[in-house]
Amino acid sequence: MIKVGIVGGTGYTGAELLRILLRHPRASVAVITSRGEAGTAVSDLFPHLRGQFDLCFSEPDPVQLGACDVVFFATPNGTAMGQAPDLLARGARVVDLAADFRLQDLAQWEAWYGMPHACPHLLADAVYGLPELHRDAVRSARLIANPGCYPTAVTLGFAPLLARGLVDPGWLIADAKSGASGAGRKAETGLLMAEVGEGFKAYAVKGHRHAPEIGQNLARLAGRPVGLTFVPHLLPMIRGIEATLYARLSVDLTDADLTDLYRQHYLGEAFVDVMPAGANPDTRSVRGSNLCRIAVTRQAGSDVVIVQSVIDNLVKGAAGQAVQNMNLMFGLDEAAGLGAIALLP
Amino acid sequence: MIKVGIVGGTGYTGAELLRILLRHPRASVAVITSRGEAGTAVSDLFPHLRGQFDLCFSEPDPVQLGACDVVFFATPNGTAMGQAPDLLARGARVVDLAADFRLQDLAQWEAWYGMPHACPHLLADAVYGLPELHRDAVRSARLIANPGCYPTAVTLGFAPLLARGLVDPGWLIADAKSGASGAGRKAETGLLMAEVGEGFKAYAVKGHRHAPEIGQNLARLAGRPVGLTFVPHLLPMIRGIEATLYARLSVDLTDADLTDLYRQHYLGEAFVDVMPAGANPDTRSVRGSNLCRIAVTRQAGSDVVIVQSVIDNLVKGAAGQAVQNMNLMFGLDEAAGLGAIALLP
Amino acid sequence: MIKVGIVGGTGYTGAELLRILLRHPRASVAVITSRGEAGTAVSDLFPHLRGQFDLCFSEPDPVQLGACDVVFFATPNGTAMGQAPDLLARGARVVDLAADFRLQDLAQWEAWYGMPHACPHLLADAVYGLPELHRDAVRSARLIANPGCYPTAVTLGFAPLLARGLVDPGWLIADAKSGASGAGRKAETGLLMAEVGEGFKAYAVKGHRHAPEIGQNLARLAGRPVGLTFVPHLLPMIRGIEATLYARLSVDLTDADLTDLYRQHYLGEAFVDVMPAGANPDTRSVRGSNLCRIAVTRQAGSDVVIVQSVIDNLVKGAAGQAVQNMNLMFGLDEAAGLGAIALLP
Amino acid sequence: MIKVGIVGGTGYTGAELLRILLRHPRASVAVITSRGEAGTAVSDLFPHLRGQFDLCFSEPDPVQLGACDVVFFATPNGTAMGQAPDLLARGARVVDLAADFRLQDLAQWEAWYGMPHACPHLLADAVYGLPELHRDAVRSARLIANPGCYPTAVTLGFAPLLARGLVDPGWLIADAKSGASGAGRKAETGLLMAEVGEGFKAYAVKGHRHAPEIGQNLARLAGRPVGLTFVPHLLPMIRGIEATLYARLSVDLTDADLTDLYRQHYLGEAFVDVMPAGANPDTRSVRGSNLCRIAVTRQAGSDVVIVQSVIDNLVKGAAGQAVQNMNLMFGLDEAAGLGAIALLP
Repeated sequence: MIKVGIVGGTGYTGAELLRILLRHPRASVAVITSRGEAGTAVSDLFPHLRGQFDLCFSEPDPVQLGACDVVFFATPNGTAMGQAPDLLARGARVVDLAADFRLQDLAQWEAWYGMPHACPHLLADAVYGLPELHRDAVRSARLIANPGCYPTAVTLGFAPLLARGLVDPGWLIADAKSGASGAGRKAETGLLMAEVGEGFKAYAVKGHRHAPEIGQNLARLAGRPVGLTFVPHLLPMIRGIEATLYARLSVDLTDADLTDLYRQHYLGEAFVDVMPAGANPDTRSVRGSNLCRIAVTRQAGSDVVIVQSVIDNLVKGAAGQAVQNMNLMFGLDEAAGLGAIALLP
Repeated sequence: MIKVGIVGGTGYTGAELLRILLRHPRASVAVITSRGEAGTAVSDLFPHLRGQFDLCFSEPDPVQLGACDVVFFATPNGTAMGQAPDLLARGARVVDLAADFRLQDLAQWEAWYGMPHACPHLLADAVYGLPELHRDAVRSARLIANPGCYPTAVTLGFAPLLARGLVDPGWLIADAKSGASGAGRKAETGLLMAEVGEGFKAYAVKGHRHAPEIGQNLARLAGRPVGLTFVPHLLPMIRGIEATLYARLSVDLTDADLTDLYRQHYLGEAFVDVMPAGANPDTRSVRGSNLCRIAVTRQAGSDVVIVQSVIDNLVKGAAGQAVQNMNLMFGLDEAAGLGAIALLP
Repeated sequence: MIKVGIVGGTGYTGAELLRILLRHPRASVAVITSRGEAGTAVSDLFPHLRGQFDLCFSEPDPVQLGACDVVFFATPNGTAMGQAPDLLARGARVVDLAADFRLQDLAQWEAWYGMPHACPHLLADAVYGLPELHRDAVRSARLIANPGCYPTAVTLGFAPLLARGLVDPGWLIADAKSGASGAGRKAETGLLMAEVGEGFKAYAVKGHRHAPEIGQNLARLAGRPVGLTFVPHLLPMIRGIEATLYARLSVDLTDADLTDLYRQHYLGEAFVDVMPAGANPDTRSVRGSNLCRIAVTRQAGSDVVIVQSVIDNLVKGAAGQAVQNMNLMFGLDEAAGLGAIALLP
Repeated sequence: MIKVGIVGGTGYTGAELLRILLRHPRASVAVITSRGEAGTAVSDLFPHLRGQFDLCFSEPDPVQLGACDVVFFATPNGTAMGQAPDLLARGARVVDLAADFRLQDLAQWEAWYGMPHACPHLLADAVYGLPELHRDAVRSARLIANPGCYPTAVTLGFAPLLARGLVDPGWLIADAKSGASGAGRKAETGLLMAEVGEGFKAYAVKGHRHAPEIGQNLARLAGRPVGLTFVPHLLPMIRGIEATLYARLSVDLTDADLTDLYRQHYLGEAFVDVMPAGANPDTRSVRGSNLCRIAVTRQAGSDVVIVQSVIDNLVKGAAGQAVQNMNLMFGLDEAAGLGAIALLP
């Protein structure tokens, strides 16, 4: 069994890691830390885990964590970079579900995250853990930068178009919408039921931290810088991201043709489902699952291709993808522990 | 007092007309019809109207309706065009909240609505009732085509940019999201709480009936045909439309400049509120009110202008705008009966 | 015009007071205070109020507040009792929307609210502002204890049964459910969309602060102490309280008989609507309105009477009732400014 | 592998049976029928099942169904009783998720369900499939009446009190609340998002079909007829039932004592979790799982015991319990295929 440590287990991604790993055939959670909740039984904080196991949150202990095969950081930005070097030195592999290792450009990272980076020398070693793009690198990685939720949905949606040079990379629009769990389990007025319910709006419209991450992914796919407009919106619901993507075709293909190309591109991928042209992927159809569902559409008389991409922000957008990366790092079936069917309705 | 008739009062737009007109200082509802519910007290169907008045639904009667000063059609598409000629001949003015008179192009209308038009000769007389664009025509109109909900939000959002030639009209994107009440009070599986709740998806992505209506509005503003991609989405909530609009600037203006232009453009408009650049209009801030709130944003290093536009689909997107048109047609204060403050939270 | 001051205007009850008072024909808000937001324009915090007025939050100033005709405290428990004596001495009338003056029994108040009371001598002068029970006292009051939201719904539901001695007062059950806005605009993890949405549970099941307040009301109606079991629940929605009440009939009356008695009891009340026996009042039917809707039912073969009572917790349960009390205190039409029709759907 | 047939697979319980059985280690779905959708791929109707299997809905065929080891009826009331005798004769076992075999009293059944019963002679053979009460009978059953969702939550909540004679059985209150999926996937106006969202009300307050079923269960536990008042409410959410139960203690026990008794009573039960006294079970903590979570509370100075019981209406309240019954009937591990952890948030 793979011995797993989780740092910062009191948020939604931590809870989701537990939900998945507690049913994983080859992994076992040995330690879960929380400075604020040290000593509290995990199931007292997360009643859905009652009776599943008897771990308590503990103070983070380098020795204990370093003795794990892999340590997941489900922490705020800036935490993993402080502890990763030591844990890697102790022989543990590290998966950061936050943003510390997502951007290759140090200056860009420090500008967007507003702090100096604690271990810039590791940025080059960190593998961006989007298996559908970097599977081989993930297999041999010791440090994984687990992608953001929006970047996962948007990158998987644009990838076939950019990798094959089918659209103008200078004019990409990503209109993305996320459930409230994407903001985490933080006591903020703006995330209250009475503030988020029965309403809808965009946020961070001047610029969101996930934009440079998406830009980095898309540029790598296009082989050149891209022009991206990314606008996130907050949905009056809990789980799910939908991204509606717009690009200008540089070749004249029907959406049936494009759907075939997407199917070829994602052939054999366990966690990408390409729906028929004109279909409408619903976030509900992936809730609780590690799937990304995609559909490609072209309206009559237009050269604009419309791509809809949906994921569960806590699974394929966070904890599920982290476990998918773990499976690859340890030579397991990539889908191990990730077979749950979405909960619908 | 203006004597009002409402045809088809059992839907949400009918109920909203009643909610507004029952508090209108200069109008009085004389008759409300429903074939299906004839004889039923309106307050039995709509308990929030209990104690407000004692009308029952009645069978539509041309004489009774023709004796009204104005008749609102809160009916499915195809109903108003069958009765409007007779009512107009009887001296009543007509406001159709459905789509029968929204498109000037007969062939286009019949293609999108799948039926022959019953009175094509009236299309030229019908005034498209978006007061912020056609106030003078509305004042003298006898037949109003009340705009669709999406077209109201999208047209008001794009108008200043197109009227002033600030963007490339060939490349317009409208990513719109609507609450479930926009689909009406219809017993359809796809509109059930268990289908719409806690989920999000696009629909009619190959093409929606509101696209040609929006295109007609934008072309008139631009003085030439436009290239529009319109994608509607269904929100897990009841009231509210948010449209995020994307266009490519043909002039180099900051979003502060653009916001000033929007403020000038809508100067004196009672029902358009231009927020500061970078603000995020929330559908909740207009729920139950006749306002359209708009914000304009430009992200660093991009020539894309982002416009956010929000309305209450049942008020400014339907019943409220219909009453605003009635006020203009009868020389009343345009805001009469429309002063309610949005209900938030 | 009545000159109004509002202390603590940054919460939901403060915003709701503004929504109502800004349309009140005889009142005008002169000052609204907030220590935390002093200097901020009210409409920056509450965008639905943009364009309605130009007040900013100010530091609470006794002179300025004392010069008002009436001061509403929309503050946490414990605030009003500190300032009320001074304001009363300055000639202002005071309406406390919090709990400081709701309980007549000092020891009980200090036990439930966990602090010493700052002005126990005022408890006897304070009038419990439930107009349907104490209208005359309210008219001549200088200090109003505005009832809690649960107590308003439960007391109005039980009142006719207890006042007429129709049930066993020793065995009363109140199963109450409230939307999340009832907990206020507080940054608490337990009130997040991701915690409250798509779920339902009871809370404070061992005992809630509103229980002694309800008990005091019911005992006064029954003329003797009552046995009450009150259990509040949190609804995955924003506005509305529904209370389902159970009592054992001591006389054999049909629910048609009981409904008649309720109608007689509330005859002439502008804000209590007794529905037919067996009806199901929906919180939506009172959302945004000052109404309490009640229905009485008896199941075949049972001596249990079931009373359903619904209100909008922010209106009849808070700000609306406060304005209703103000209207009475100043000799205005009791319904002035409270005529809004509920927003449905 | 157990060969499974599902009759009427287009509703939510049918979809939930598929979600569970597709991951069951010892069962395989051989046929799923639907008259309305015959020929349609199941995954076209339920996109969350895309890629899971390739079954299409078929016309119900007695031979094909009769060749199954077990046939689940996920059909409207009145369907199973028409086909069960034939299927039983063909050697299949039958689990009816509807109400055809739930009531032992024929006259009572025909009165509540408004139709003559097609095979009254089978009522005595049918086993009421609540394993926590009738495990041995279920093991040897050939025909299972799968309990209703409300009866499951209410019966498990009251059982220890009644079985041990701790309360007055003549005065039982069950105030129950259910998500909208409990009403099924029916195109009814009353179940629309715009009707159910952001609102709350009771329904069927004069009497609900589940009341006699609950009464039958409780009477069997108490060994005498009981006096039950059952009031169901509709929650603005999709999945989950919470029942708050009230009874009068006939012995003086603390809620700590009562909690111990509940733990003893349910000792070894895989799907009943007794929480500490005063805890508040949340429907979210069982969403997607087969668990029933219960807490027992007594308020100071009262002889009323308050029991909170939560389940997922589609799992423990329907499909999960049906699979639990199947496991017992075929001598499998009772928990086989039912190990999913609840999805929270």
